[in-house]
Amino acid sequence: MSDARPARKTAKRTNDPEGMRRRILDVAAESFQARGYEATSIHDLVREAQTTGGALHHHFPTKKSLGLAVIRERVAPAVDAAWIEPVHSARTASQGILAAFKDIAAGLRERGRVRGCPLNNLTLELSLADPDFQQSLQQVFSAWRNAIAERLKQDKATGLTQLDPDAFATLVIASYSGAMAMAKAQQEATPLEVCAKQLASIMKAARC
Amino acid sequence: MSDARPARKTAKRTNDPEGMRRRILDVAAESFQARGYEATSIHDLVREAQTTGGALHHHFPTKKSLGLAVIRERVAPAVDAAWIEPVHSARTASQGILAAFKDIAAGLRERGRVRGCPLNNLTLELSLADPDFQQSLQQVFSAWRNAIAERLKQDKATGLTQLDPDAFATLVIASYSGAMAMAKAQQEATPLEVCAKQLASIMKAARC
Repeated sequence: MSDARPARKTAKRTNDPEGMRRRILDVAAESFQARGYEATSIHDLVREAQTTGGALHHHFPTKKSLGLAVIRERVAPAVDAAWIEPVHSARTASQGILAAFKDIAAGLRERGRVRGCPLNNLTLELSLADPDFQQSLQQVFSAWRNAIAERLKQDKATGLTQLDPDAFATLVIASYSGAMAMAKAQQEATPLEVCAKQLASIMKAARC
Repeated sequence: MSDARPARKTAKRTNDPEGMRRRILDVAAESFQARGYEATSIHDLVREAQTTGGALHHHFPTKKSLGLAVIRERVAPAVDAAWIEPVHSARTASQGILAAFKDIAAGLRERGRVRGCPLNNLTLELSLADPDFQQSLQQVFSAWRNAIAERLKQDKATGLTQLDPDAFATLVIASYSGAMAMAKAQQEATPLEVCAKQLASIMKAARC
């Protein structure tokens, strides 16, 4: 029943090419996150986005162009929402970092399933496969690290912390990324909570 | 020319079934590390191990059974050699942890290429795909964390550190795992070196 009149559906949606492009990106981002890039076929995406091979090809001539668009238009904004925005808007870097850990761990507990960090998932799968993927993924890590480091520099300038901003930003992202990998292996949020608590002690001890 | 007389080669090697099993595991571990589990076909492995489909099937009836054997017989021993052994034999936990980081970073610099941690690569690819994979991968993380925590407990008992052994062991593994993901995205060892230096300061500050 749900497959009824697919032609009409498709015809309707091609009148909204931007909407179709967004839907393909949403479906691809979801599938890369759930199953991985390699395990996702264009055929699956055509079916899941309720589109046609031609329409998909019009927006994304190659699977690689779709992969790059997912990194830039779905993965980077996800890192922005989960990390860069909270760190930017918090009263201190420390509060922003701990809020990001807390919200993400709470989300995992709520869902009862750990699919991992979309950026790290694609990084481990694709960095070696293609230099364009590698560069795009690196740029997302770089923006993430710069955002935390900049916030720490403000705190340092106003006498709130003695931490080395660039180095500690790297430790925060590394410990978060690795804790998420451990959480994925355990299928529970505990490693994120343990690391957040360790980082909290370190940040507390580095107060001026 | 290199394909000349494969039948004779194969016939020779089936006289050493254990050697053949080891060679298949080596080739599979290498391919999972370089390209990923999903991107590796049994056909590739048969060719690369210079064996036959029948011989491979004899040792590993399914791709999954081969994946599990790679985790248990190649990935776990690699974690043992790179981490558990150095931490076990060092004078202090701190020295063992820093030696592991240093040796791994030096190896990456020497090779000029970052393929990532085999355990983390397979964890992000396979933990969601199958509960047996998830459990096997979790066991490797667990043995790794226990080894570091046990070593820290000894140091704590003899008054060498005030760190929380279990929590700090989690932070060490998380920061190493995430730093390796960042190193893979950047294709350079720097994130590992930065994290090692941060952990060194933390361990130094926690001396009794």
